Amino acid sequence: MQVLNRVAEQGVVEERFDLPVEDAVVPGIIWSPENAAAPGPTILIGHGGTQHKRTPNVLGLARRFVRHLGYRAIAIDAPGHGDRISDPDAAARQRQRLEQRIANRTGAPTFSAEEAEAWVERSARGLREWTAVVDHILSNDVCDGRIGYWGVSMGTIIGLPFVAADRRVQAAVLGLAGIGNRPGAQRFAEAASALQVPILFVFQWDDELMSRDAGLQLFDRIGSPEKTMHINPGGHVAMPLFERDAFEAFFRRHLGAP
Amino acid sequence: MQVLNRVAEQGVVEERFDLPVEDAVVPGIIWSPENAAAPGPTILIGHGGTQHKRTPNVLGLARRFVRHLGYRAIAIDAPGHGDRISDPDAAARQRQRLEQRIANRTGAPTFSAEEAEAWVERSARGLREWTAVVDHILSNDVCDGRIGYWGVSMGTIIGLPFVAADRRVQAAVLGLAGIGNRPGAQRFAEAASALQVPILFVFQWDDELMSRDAGLQLFDRIGSPEKTMHINPGGHVAMPLFERDAFEAFFRRHLGAP
Repeated sequence: MQVLNRVAEQGVVEERFDLPVEDAVVPGIIWSPENAAAPGPTILIGHGGTQHKRTPNVLGLARRFVRHLGYRAIAIDAPGHGDRISDPDAAARQRQRLEQRIANRTGAPTFSAEEAEAWVERSARGLREWTAVVDHILSNDVCDGRIGYWGVSMGTIIGLPFVAADRRVQAAVLGLAGIGNRPGAQRFAEAASALQVPILFVFQWDDELMSRDAGLQLFDRIGSPEKTMHINPGGHVAMPLFERDAFEAFFRRHLGAP
Repeated sequence: MQVLNRVAEQGVVEERFDLPVEDAVVPGIIWSPENAAAPGPTILIGHGGTQHKRTPNVLGLARRFVRHLGYRAIAIDAPGHGDRISDPDAAARQRQRLEQRIANRTGAPTFSAEEAEAWVERSARGLREWTAVVDHILSNDVCDGRIGYWGVSMGTIIGLPFVAADRRVQAAVLGLAGIGNRPGAQRFAEAASALQVPILFVFQWDDELMSRDAGLQLFDRIGSPEKTMHINPGGHVAMPLFERDAFEAFFRRHLGAP
């Protein structure tokens, strides 16, 4: 992990890093409490589709986890996102398509066989990259072994199979996702069944991209003995800010004091 | 309101009172912070079927609201419950029937026309009694005008129409209830639509007395712009204790500091 930049602001140290994983370089950020001496609990934050590692809600959450909980937080650019965008025009078109789907309430996207394959490959790659991040923070005095994951929408598409596969993650906030007829849905459902750790699953009751049934189905499939679903009215991007208090309480309960 | 008894324990003052309402005497308890000088925010707690005003979960909640939030809490015996039981044998049989329904997973009870009428009458009476309690605490320097309601199961059957009708209640935790084919279901659904204040609706995903659909339907019908549903696995009496933290955070957010 190469640290490229380091700034401290209002008690939060923000370090920009590059981590080589397989044939790629994964750009990331780690936020830590200023004057943090020992390794501590760490929350991995997976951003949504078309977003990136320092998108406003990721940045806001990371700072809260540091300031309110005394934890560390890490975000990385998912494959094809943020600094990993190779074709900015294509990325802009993709963002427009997503916004259109939300505006037109057209529901979950349909995929060509090619797009579907790309999605599945991207999710699998994203999973392996999180595993590499965990390897790294555990062997470099960042994390004391207490690890949480937070990620909704695409952050769940990538994060749910990751949390199911990597038993070092001890609690996760997931959401804005469901079991539909998306490419890889069957494997996704199986990953949900394999989950064992406490899950807080947040869902929007009027999500333009996801049916209620698909969301409830996913909650139902989650294998964890402790799981809670929080449903709020409103669309995909209208989750109420007070849910952030619930995220904090959830991680504090499961990862403990720093 | 006649105060019959007053004890103070670990910072919580508990006063047993009798309040005459119509042709009945309603027995209740008010819990307050020791040394509370001025009137403060007050949570009304409605107990479940076969329970009473000092049943363990009511007592535990009341003490938490006083100790953690600095609020007051009030519980009363619902019609035909607690000190208002006139036929102890009949009450014991009713409790056994409820336990049997839970054990046998027989779902929502069926009613004879007579029983149905009694249920509707009991709920309407319970509503009027809460209104009388609110009249009383506002005119007797108990409550400063900030009022919350907490009640699940029968506490929702009685409490939801009360909160919908009495605009002095500013936020409510409801749950373990649904819209089924129970007597008065249509009026109950209309009351849900009339709700305007923030609602936290808690539900058990494997409730032996209530189908998932009936619960989701009720959440859907709630008219309040701010409403959140918390779903946890397990049966009617297995709501996880950590939801108490959510109740506290909810009331603190809406009623503020004492």
